[in-house]
Amino acid sequence: MKYGYFDDQNKEYVIEKPDTPSSWSNYLGSTRYGAIITNNAGGYSFFKSVAQGRFTRLRFNAVPMDQAGRYIYIHDAESKDYWSTSWQPVAKPLDQYKSECRHGSAYTKISSDYSEISTETTFFVPLDADYECWSTKVKNKGSKRRTLKLFTYVEYGCNWNAGDDLNNLQYSQYITNMNVVDSIISHASNVNLPEMPDDFEEKDQARYTFLGAVGVEPVAYDTDREAFLGPYRTYANPIAVEKGQCSNSLAKAGNPCGTLQFEITLEPGEEKDFAIFMGIGRAEKEGKAVIEKFANLELIDEEFNKLKNHWHSKMSQMSVQTPDSDVDSMLNMWSQFNSLMTFFWSRAASLVYSGARDGLGYRDTVQDMLGVMHAIPELVQERLELMITGQVASGGAMPVVKPFAHRPGFEKEPTPEEFRSDDALWLFNAVPAYVKETGDLDFYHKVLPYADKGEGTILQHLRQAIEFSIKYSGAHGFPCGMLADWNDCLELGQEGETVFVAFQLRYGLKTYIEICELLGKLESEITWAQAALEKLDKNLHDHAWDGEWFLRAYRDDGLKFGSKENDEGSIFLNTQTWSVLSGHASEQEQKSAMDAVHSELATDYGVMLCAPPFVKTDYKVVRAALFNPGLKENAAIFTHTQGWTIMAEAMLGRGDRAFDYYKSTLPAAYNDRAELRQIEPYVYCQSTISKFHPLEGASRLPWLTGAATWAFYAASQYIIGIQPDYHGLTIDPCIPSHWDKFQVSRQFRGATYQITVTNPNKVNKGIASIKLNGEIIAGQCLPLCAKGSQNSVEVIMG
Amino acid sequence: MKYGYFDDQNKEYVIEKPDTPSSWSNYLGSTRYGAIITNNAGGYSFFKSVAQGRFTRLRFNAVPMDQAGRYIYIHDAESKDYWSTSWQPVAKPLDQYKSECRHGSAYTKISSDYSEISTETTFFVPLDADYECWSTKVKNKGSKRRTLKLFTYVEYGCNWNAGDDLNNLQYSQYITNMNVVDSIISHASNVNLPEMPDDFEEKDQARYTFLGAVGVEPVAYDTDREAFLGPYRTYANPIAVEKGQCSNSLAKAGNPCGTLQFEITLEPGEEKDFAIFMGIGRAEKEGKAVIEKFANLELIDEEFNKLKNHWHSKMSQMSVQTPDSDVDSMLNMWSQFNSLMTFFWSRAASLVYSGARDGLGYRDTVQDMLGVMHAIPELVQERLELMITGQVASGGAMPVVKPFAHRPGFEKEPTPEEFRSDDALWLFNAVPAYVKETGDLDFYHKVLPYADKGEGTILQHLRQAIEFSIKYSGAHGFPCGMLADWNDCLELGQEGETVFVAFQLRYGLKTYIEICELLGKLESEITWAQAALEKLDKNLHDHAWDGEWFLRAYRDDGLKFGSKENDEGSIFLNTQTWSVLSGHASEQEQKSAMDAVHSELATDYGVMLCAPPFVKTDYKVVRAALFNPGLKENAAIFTHTQGWTIMAEAMLGRGDRAFDYYKSTLPAAYNDRAELRQIEPYVYCQSTISKFHPLEGASRLPWLTGAATWAFYAASQYIIGIQPDYHGLTIDPCIPSHWDKFQVSRQFRGATYQITVTNPNKVNKGIASIKLNGEIIAGQCLPLCAKGSQNSVEVIMG
Repeated sequence: MKYGYFDDQNKEYVIEKPDTPSSWSNYLGSTRYGAIITNNAGGYSFFKSVAQGRFTRLRFNAVPMDQAGRYIYIHDAESKDYWSTSWQPVAKPLDQYKSECRHGSAYTKISSDYSEISTETTFFVPLDADYECWSTKVKNKGSKRRTLKLFTYVEYGCNWNAGDDLNNLQYSQYITNMNVVDSIISHASNVNLPEMPDDFEEKDQARYTFLGAVGVEPVAYDTDREAFLGPYRTYANPIAVEKGQCSNSLAKAGNPCGTLQFEITLEPGEEKDFAIFMGIGRAEKEGKAVIEKFANLELIDEEFNKLKNHWHSKMSQMSVQTPDSDVDSMLNMWSQFNSLMTFFWSRAASLVYSGARDGLGYRDTVQDMLGVMHAIPELVQERLELMITGQVASGGAMPVVKPFAHRPGFEKEPTPEEFRSDDALWLFNAVPAYVKETGDLDFYHKVLPYADKGEGTILQHLRQAIEFSIKYSGAHGFPCGMLADWNDCLELGQEGETVFVAFQLRYGLKTYIEICELLGKLESEITWAQAALEKLDKNLHDHAWDGEWFLRAYRDDGLKFGSKENDEGSIFLNTQTWSVLSGHASEQEQKSAMDAVHSELATDYGVMLCAPPFVKTDYKVVRAALFNPGLKENAAIFTHTQGWTIMAEAMLGRGDRAFDYYKSTLPAAYNDRAELRQIEPYVYCQSTISKFHPLEGASRLPWLTGAATWAFYAASQYIIGIQPDYHGLTIDPCIPSHWDKFQVSRQFRGATYQITVTNPNKVNKGIASIKLNGEIIAGQCLPLCAKGSQNSVEVIMG
Repeated sequence: MKYGYFDDQNKEYVIEKPDTPSSWSNYLGSTRYGAIITNNAGGYSFFKSVAQGRFTRLRFNAVPMDQAGRYIYIHDAESKDYWSTSWQPVAKPLDQYKSECRHGSAYTKISSDYSEISTETTFFVPLDADYECWSTKVKNKGSKRRTLKLFTYVEYGCNWNAGDDLNNLQYSQYITNMNVVDSIISHASNVNLPEMPDDFEEKDQARYTFLGAVGVEPVAYDTDREAFLGPYRTYANPIAVEKGQCSNSLAKAGNPCGTLQFEITLEPGEEKDFAIFMGIGRAEKEGKAVIEKFANLELIDEEFNKLKNHWHSKMSQMSVQTPDSDVDSMLNMWSQFNSLMTFFWSRAASLVYSGARDGLGYRDTVQDMLGVMHAIPELVQERLELMITGQVASGGAMPVVKPFAHRPGFEKEPTPEEFRSDDALWLFNAVPAYVKETGDLDFYHKVLPYADKGEGTILQHLRQAIEFSIKYSGAHGFPCGMLADWNDCLELGQEGETVFVAFQLRYGLKTYIEICELLGKLESEITWAQAALEKLDKNLHDHAWDGEWFLRAYRDDGLKFGSKENDEGSIFLNTQTWSVLSGHASEQEQKSAMDAVHSELATDYGVMLCAPPFVKTDYKVVRAALFNPGLKENAAIFTHTQGWTIMAEAMLGRGDRAFDYYKSTLPAAYNDRAELRQIEPYVYCQSTISKFHPLEGASRLPWLTGAATWAFYAASQYIIGIQPDYHGLTIDPCIPSHWDKFQVSRQFRGATYQITVTNPNKVNKGIASIKLNGEIIAGQCLPLCAKGSQNSVEVIMG
């Protein structure tokens, strides 16, 4: 079933049927003022931290699915009928109520049409603002004069700390302090405490927010949830809306809400505009200033356009036009926007993540950069440097770096039991990608502190990452599993060994050698790394091959994971793909391994993480056994890994298979059967349920996932094949043979390349010729062109 | 407004209007299998621990207020109309739907009458059972044949750990495993883990519950919440109920529920009975056994009567008949039952306490015993001994004792910063009360270990409590405030001093001397205690009196709390009442202090904790400033303290004032204006909002509170005046002068005393004569009578 469509022109996803199988959400704002909004206007807002600064309330996993949110109720003064400008929460019958939701780049527009009244509300956070705007138009489409009473609703948390708001009712129910100042709602808690908005450790914070209106004059208000809703009622039928009158309640305890009541009269055909602003600060100061600033409603459109242009320009650094519109919709907007939001919010803010993962998980964060290098290189640099200073001098990394609390040079080194084996090795993906995008070779020589003590150039940081992995190696010469390798659910023991990380280490060594060769005068480094690589290759050759595919790991007592010897989990995906990515495997091994992936792990909905699932295996052997078969790490389609699968097949030149894999987890490809996947058809997810479970195809945890970055990276660099390189832009597509042509626009180091690729011979891979501005070039790498230049590139495959 | 009434005959509170201002709840079960149920069948069930063993789900502080619960839906096969056997969650209009809820002693009966169908469901947990029963009758009151489809509903937590269920959606949404075995629902999570039902530290527990029916045959089921409810629906309109058909869903992920569908046909006037059983264990084993056991429905009535008799007999150890029916309703049932539930559940399980306070708070628990000594002395002994072993050898106490984890002799001594100053001193109330009730003088000589090391007789434990308070004394010779004295919200600093605890210490010394005199041959102990008492009295005389009342405390820098010098918090209640209770104050001081209480702190709704409230005071001086004025420790009526106020006035002989105070916080006294107090008119609460807040009179946190025990203790021993003593039962009433007569029935050490008190001269206090079985006795203490004897006592006041 289809609930909406991609409006590529406007870079919007348009939901026409509001009763989506799950909440289909979008992100607004920035890492200062963030917000989530669903297609039914559910969601919440937060300041700096979703766990410590969440000031509006939404209950996760509740019934109904995504309430409360940002609501505007309409009560018809004559008929006494009432509804909401989003389908939920009043939920009028869908044969009478029409609704459209347009999720765009950091904004969402929700329209309604009911009872001859149409509305359109645009929700967005202006650039660099600490407030959000609900810009609204209401139009009388009928032939008689209408008098409407309008009511806003947000439900505030009692305490900014989301956990305390939920659980510490002994405290949180007694600290609310609501006021109304010059028709602006003042929401505060703990007013007898000093304001400490940055002190996340001190939970008893006093903070203020405001909610006010421009273009309409409030005539009444409610700030007490119980007074507005009435007992035994819900967001679907608040007593104040039913009556058409607020009671001017001021909550000084209990649960606060933000309701301003307005009255508007509309002649036939008349439209009125107004806007609601909600933000951080005091009503009398910040609130008043915002309301005054936007007294001229046209300024709202200006701010909106600024915001839209901001994101569109970030995402227009690369765009494609292919024979597949699903691919275009994703690569030109959603795959990029998904990667950007994941970069910004890591794993903190969503309808699933409750904020407990506050801070930047090392491995996630370093990978999350790969999909946004081209769009926001300055922000990537800042984040990358932060993460590099999260590496300790021994080469391992802090599992979590908290930007608001990180103190390089003064952090405690994790114990050997706390380290994860893969964390710092992801730098071999991120650092070269950054340098290749920007051309900033000096970056390798930049000196940065270690988390615990001392400092080193970034090159030295990279070397330390290798040293760490070599130091903590086990009996077969592979890195130890430690607390966890990428896959958290193997119980290897401290001395157990991970073949996956061994391949990562090989990738690191190979990359390190390339960098040293690039920088020059580093022969001794190259010699050292070369020797280590050869030793590792020998160990991999001797101990990692299982006959048809590569093992996944050895437990500390020698038990194999991912071997034919195992009845359950006899093959794992990640070591097959990384055997290719790392450059270790022979061509024969690569093909055998990837063919095994195809026969053992591939499904219509993506490639499973492992198989068969763990049912009889003790959870002490594989923690994944906790999950039901076909879910999460227990043989689900773990979406993070799909990019590697695509890349490996592309490296093998098998473009049809690479593209099949890409399409099997491409969100847009499920648009017309969205009831199957359930979640948003415009974003990636953490996992898709596999054939070992009755809900096969259903997907879980949309938005914040490494899948986003790797999917974009794999598609743009390995299928589309536009690869930033140190000295230019390499063109190396690997496409389905039925594609006869595609176009790419790419901004690279200030120049624009308009690339047209034709495929007259229906090949998957291979370049016959490349013309840059009409001139044939040698090789596949476009040389750097002048900043500001427009360049035409014609590529013929063959 | 009145929502219900007390049915004293049946020891039930009967709610006739279901739309109570808040959820009016009741407790079922035991500390093994516990449950909470509201008047609208909301609530949840738990096994051993509300935090770690909560298996059905209710969201606290949510909208609507108390869902989910234990529901039975009815769908009329002909009209397709549907409703629920409790008003909520379908909530049919109250002009068509009649409902009655009878909360009794560990059972609740909910009846409905709608559409000519009447139902009655009795919810209870049989004695010593690990399961609950919903025994239901459905009757056709109309004149035509009816076919009804019935659906049960409970919502299970995904994980037994309530915190993980709410917050760890990455985990909890993938571990559900629902099955149906022989028409019994099998609910399980984490089935690949071993079952460790007692290991609260290991949260990844595999556990099983069942839900089955007796008397009706299930024809379908749903175990997946989303399948049963349908998207964008609520408990008010499940899709399965609307359609009249379950879909036989088996949840293997997501949110599980327990729905069995039945069909019954009723001729005009016909009634059918059935019962639902939900409990701990596997469907195929424990579930099947329970269903088979109750195949004969009459056994349910037997079990129900056993349960009712059990509690009624506990509470019939004392009963009264006074001129005030509110007093009778409370003292004969609810005050006792409230104390019992508080004793059992401490501060863990309610609609407010989310279970974070898992374990027994020292001071709370030792006080909670006082109201249940007469009812369950054996259980009190066990708990009291547990708490005594929570005292460390130095005399201080562990702030929290966890029964499921406590290891006397092996616990770590709290640091000086962790100790609370009052904890162990409460033993001077509890231990003598236990010995006086039971006559077990040897108890003082019983040897028990200390929490950390060593052991001592209980008398030695008591002495250590004194030593601890003397050791940690400050500049004025008063006990230091430490982490907290009774009132957690004063910031005294480690060396600050608490006058309240000084009075407690004086009470302890006085009591210790009495015990030593009683036991004999302890002259040196008496000499030691007498000297300490005299020294303390001198310090109190010199440094604790503020002119008209007693100070509350000194901060470590000498700043006074509760002095006229303070603009805010210039008088505190607790040091006035304890100046009397401790025996320290002169008669003149006592009267002055208690008159100041009357003029400065007394309100129509009870006596405030302090006044004026803290508004300008820095929260670092008094943490109570966090709360809005008139709330909680910031000048609310903190109900715990009311008993002490009553006792103090009774000790002063001012029976009218004592009774006024008693009535001002007596829940039953608010029955006819329940909208004001909002909470249950049959139980005590933690606090009532005072005149410094717009919600004056509204009360918060019903049920689990020290208020319950002290209210019963004060009323029964100081107003009614029946005081267990070491060698008999002392009669010393202090009543309102308008009472001309009252009667008491008291079981004491196996004998029954039927006491009639007459007050011909309208006095408050004083005994003219006492006749025991017709014979005048000397003094006020009834001598012990033979076990099993029935004794008539006639008391004339004057």
